[in-house]
Amino acid sequence: MKLSIRKDALGEAIGHVIRAVSPRPVIPILGGIRLDADARGLTLTASDTDMTIQSFIPAEKDGEPVVRLEGDGSLVLGAKFFSEIVRKLPTDTVELEATDARRAVIRSGNAEIELVGMDPDEYPVMPSVADAAHFQAGGLQLKQLIHRTVFAVSANESTPILTGVLWQLSEGRLKLTATDRHRLSKAECAVSADPDLKLDQLVIAGRTLNELSRLIPDDGTVIDVQATDSQVLFRMDGILFHSRLLDGTYPDTSRIITNQYKTELVMSTRELADAIERAYLLSREEKTNIVRLSTVGGGEIEVSSSSLEIGKVTERIRPDHLAGEDLKIAFNSRYMLDALKVIDSEKIHIGFTGPMSPILLRPDRDPDMLHLILPYRTTT
Amino acid sequence: MKLSIRKDALGEAIGHVIRAVSPRPVIPILGGIRLDADARGLTLTASDTDMTIQSFIPAEKDGEPVVRLEGDGSLVLGAKFFSEIVRKLPTDTVELEATDARRAVIRSGNAEIELVGMDPDEYPVMPSVADAAHFQAGGLQLKQLIHRTVFAVSANESTPILTGVLWQLSEGRLKLTATDRHRLSKAECAVSADPDLKLDQLVIAGRTLNELSRLIPDDGTVIDVQATDSQVLFRMDGILFHSRLLDGTYPDTSRIITNQYKTELVMSTRELADAIERAYLLSREEKTNIVRLSTVGGGEIEVSSSSLEIGKVTERIRPDHLAGEDLKIAFNSRYMLDALKVIDSEKIHIGFTGPMSPILLRPDRDPDMLHLILPYRTTT
Repeated sequence: MKLSIRKDALGEAIGHVIRAVSPRPVIPILGGIRLDADARGLTLTASDTDMTIQSFIPAEKDGEPVVRLEGDGSLVLGAKFFSEIVRKLPTDTVELEATDARRAVIRSGNAEIELVGMDPDEYPVMPSVADAAHFQAGGLQLKQLIHRTVFAVSANESTPILTGVLWQLSEGRLKLTATDRHRLSKAECAVSADPDLKLDQLVIAGRTLNELSRLIPDDGTVIDVQATDSQVLFRMDGILFHSRLLDGTYPDTSRIITNQYKTELVMSTRELADAIERAYLLSREEKTNIVRLSTVGGGEIEVSSSSLEIGKVTERIRPDHLAGEDLKIAFNSRYMLDALKVIDSEKIHIGFTGPMSPILLRPDRDPDMLHLILPYRTTT
Repeated sequence: MKLSIRKDALGEAIGHVIRAVSPRPVIPILGGIRLDADARGLTLTASDTDMTIQSFIPAEKDGEPVVRLEGDGSLVLGAKFFSEIVRKLPTDTVELEATDARRAVIRSGNAEIELVGMDPDEYPVMPSVADAAHFQAGGLQLKQLIHRTVFAVSANESTPILTGVLWQLSEGRLKLTATDRHRLSKAECAVSADPDLKLDQLVIAGRTLNELSRLIPDDGTVIDVQATDSQVLFRMDGILFHSRLLDGTYPDTSRIITNQYKTELVMSTRELADAIERAYLLSREEKTNIVRLSTVGGGEIEVSSSSLEIGKVTERIRPDHLAGEDLKIAFNSRYMLDALKVIDSEKIHIGFTGPMSPILLRPDRDPDMLHLILPYRTTT
């Protein structure tokens, strides 16, 4: 391999793929970035076996040369140093040459960097998703669905399936669900798919979705999603993002969602979030995160938390609408704040189903998102 | 105590003093911020015994009321929660009332926060610096002197005196020196002082100076410095910054600084820093930080580093001026980069005194700053 390439294009592609390089790779070669050069351009690949990211740099972009190829070939270079040194190179165009299968040299201005590489023949092959079921979704919509659900995945590796987000497709609608058994978040949107196409049990690790989300540009990009029983591939402009699906059966969560409330309220999302944030600050010092919400008569609610050592926070708010039974409930305020943070509508609807039954949060007048939080049993 | 106060002024003063609150206070009451209210305004104090910071909020500023006093008194409130909750209060003006010596309540909009405080009578008294020797220095000059030296203090607590910066004043010039035995940095400037005033053995902890530097505003503030045998007080607009001096005798470093060089060069500071940065990236992977510099003939020098596992970085540069014996030297590139980063002149002068003797760096044509680095003995 011998080529010269624009430093910014190389740096950007490294930035795309390096998120798939694990700090503790399962096999040494996965600590590297694979480079493949041919007449079309340069492809970079990195993988931690769970996710694999490919970024393609075309030989030309907007009629301007980006890669000038003198000889094709493949190389695997240690990701960390390669990434750092490219950022620090002195000139806008850099030269990259493989001197043998495991050695390369980068030239830029007066700087010459010899790199000990790894054997590209040992680099794992990207799994195929040929003939897989596929659909298209707007990049921004996908990012939003991920943002609205991924925080609710379980951090507990003892139930691996709950560390992922469930993707379901039916009748042209994509639904994402995440739960850690204490809370649940659901979001959905319309996608371009064959109305007969039905996907279920597609569970993608939360960590992987966070990386995918970072790669999706904030523009009108349309993303092609291809899925098999064990793999999913997201294809966008110049980037292929490949993820293994999590093994196991995702629990059926449909029965715990209800519209039968004992108490209901509608109020300003911001006002509630600010009051809970203040009570959270105190509850955090106690390491419980417990905040209480109760009706206090006169159409008002009280948000409160207390700590013997520090003191007490109380705040009364008058919701726009409050109906049903009197209420006295305690919950993990961190979970409540996580949900309120992704609700971007001005008003929120909260339904309470009993002191020990789920609290349901929805943006007022938006049926496409739902958050559920289980209350705490407290002694007072 | 009962008063109402502008939230922004209170938040700013908390921000000033909270840096003196240790995460692990030596006595519980130092986990708090002391508040003293009287007709002049509100004073906040925090201390970790090494440094004590006071911030004063005047009752009026620019003719506008800032504090409205209804009753004077003192209070000590837990720093962390107090600081966080003030930032999150809903209204621009907040009410603060001590309900007894150890209890207070904050009211802001609909939020009411009860705080369990500590007994102000138990709060340590700030040491006095009455009748101390004093001088005035420009805030920006002081910040610059600190910036140019403090990075070179020792991180090793086994020689406590070297974790501080030596301040010396004579003939109206203030000189700061820091060394960790492997490198040394010196910087000086003129200050307003009685020409007969001589201060020596004033050693202030590096950590404390970093905090002082953060508090000095980026404007023409003049700072009054008062020193006794054991204390130093920096007085600026609305802020008193008090520091204990480090015990012990600072080593005499004057003899190791020389103007007798075996090899000398003058070159672009930036060009050298960039080349060393690239070599550093590789040397860091080996955890040695060793970078080599040698003359290669033709008026050029070579900066290089190598690692069996990763490869080699080499770069040839032609200095503006190169004179004296041939040179082959190795050094800790992190130390070199630390020094180059604070040299803001375009050109740098480096004097080499031998392969195992100090390397001296100075901005070209600026006698007020000097950095010295001891080379490494290497086998090759």
